[in-house]
Amino acid sequence: MNMGKRSKVAFQGERGAYSELAARQFFGEEIPLVPCPSFEHVFRAVEKGQARCGVVPIENSLAGSIHQNYDLLLKYHLQIIGEKSLRVSHNLIAAPQTSLARVRRIFSHPQALMQCQNSTARLKNVELIPVYDTAGAVKKIRDENLTDGAAIASDLAARLYGMKILKRNLEDNPENYTRFLVLSRTGKAPQKADKTSIVFSLKNLPGALFRSLSVFALRDIDLYKIESRPLHGKPWEYFFYIDFAGNMRHPNCRNAITHLSEIATFLKILGSYQRDRA
Amino acid sequence: MNMGKRSKVAFQGERGAYSELAARQFFGEEIPLVPCPSFEHVFRAVEKGQARCGVVPIENSLAGSIHQNYDLLLKYHLQIIGEKSLRVSHNLIAAPQTSLARVRRIFSHPQALMQCQNSTARLKNVELIPVYDTAGAVKKIRDENLTDGAAIASDLAARLYGMKILKRNLEDNPENYTRFLVLSRTGKAPQKADKTSIVFSLKNLPGALFRSLSVFALRDIDLYKIESRPLHGKPWEYFFYIDFAGNMRHPNCRNAITHLSEIATFLKILGSYQRDRA
Repeated sequence: MNMGKRSKVAFQGERGAYSELAARQFFGEEIPLVPCPSFEHVFRAVEKGQARCGVVPIENSLAGSIHQNYDLLLKYHLQIIGEKSLRVSHNLIAAPQTSLARVRRIFSHPQALMQCQNSTARLKNVELIPVYDTAGAVKKIRDENLTDGAAIASDLAARLYGMKILKRNLEDNPENYTRFLVLSRTGKAPQKADKTSIVFSLKNLPGALFRSLSVFALRDIDLYKIESRPLHGKPWEYFFYIDFAGNMRHPNCRNAITHLSEIATFLKILGSYQRDRA
Repeated sequence: MNMGKRSKVAFQGERGAYSELAARQFFGEEIPLVPCPSFEHVFRAVEKGQARCGVVPIENSLAGSIHQNYDLLLKYHLQIIGEKSLRVSHNLIAAPQTSLARVRRIFSHPQALMQCQNSTARLKNVELIPVYDTAGAVKKIRDENLTDGAAIASDLAARLYGMKILKRNLEDNPENYTRFLVLSRTGKAPQKADKTSIVFSLKNLPGALFRSLSVFALRDIDLYKIESRPLHGKPWEYFFYIDFAGNMRHPNCRNAITHLSEIATFLKILGSYQRDRA
């Protein structure tokens, strides 16, 4: 995607985070980046105009949806303008003078530690220590001069902090992908948009969910994903998030949404964008 | 529910955990309990016969589904034989000699800390420290004689560890409920069962999810919940978990499931049980 040279992109984590990789793949390597301490800070930076766009993970093929970001899509008024699927490849990273045999502690995000359980179990006398984020673990090893420590993170993080990769492809399951959303304050759907995301709630009536899905089925609109999140204050009622094929310029999609608004008690269009088939 | 006097019930956490409260409400106060270090240990204890039943949380009305337990329902071959909704009421708990003004650190599970953010923000010079579980935080304060520390946990935990309640109803949102499932190895559906849970996967075809829901809609069977979880090894395909009205002794439900098995690539019935309307 083309953006002005000064257009900044916000992401959560330290420099070298997987979100930064996704942002670079989407916007190109030269984009100015704004690291943020939390997902909510990313949404806020975009809403306040401190960054032109934000990149947040929404789903991992092993761990499932990142629910906090579904909730933030509802809370903030941003548009989804793109998505990027990233193959997550974990590396064991240490200081240049550290050998594999000297590693006694491995730092990483709990999710990454879990995804490398089999690989790390083969190492002897090693303690696994959960920390805030993957790239942050590499930074910690550099900043604190830890010569018996290693981190699990991206190869970009190793490069950025001048650290050495002891072992590549540490992940137990190679089918490890994370899908990221690209968010913007003022969203005009890209010309090639072929996917739309919405969120809605329903009256708590028998058959309500089925009827809401029928607005798509009756128009041969394919659904990619459905996700539910609790509606606060109404125990056991839900917001439904749906991704479907098409964009809001198509009359067929507009008709489906008009039909859905007859059934829904709340409805918000999150954006139309180009589907990443990678 | 009636069980023999020696029938043990497994749950995750230290004594006094919210799961223990749910187990006591379901089985009665006298039931022998088996505390387990993780959810997977609960499933394993029931599968191996070390406990007759297990009680695990499946959904919180604020935080959403507990996905690990959805995944474990698929991995282990246990039956759901009941459910219990528990109103989660958090208390600030400290040693008998500690006053509210002396509290400098509050320990609890990250989820509980998050649910009491507004209440704890009003206390000055207090650090929030996430720990393994709520009741474990109370035990820690007792075991380590922490006189400047407090825990957020159930009143049962305060009672069991001989600690004092400094403040009740600490939760920011009173609509805070957790739904627990009761699991057993050999499940015969209770006579009054009016709810059934299943899990299935579908061919990745347009309209597949809609067709799978039509087997219920065509027979006027009400759906209570739908949840999706990633299918490992097949990025962006899902297992669907559905709770519906009725039990597998009803011909109507059996017909719906037979119909669903024509569409599904995988189908497992998790159990029929009595719905908790609380």
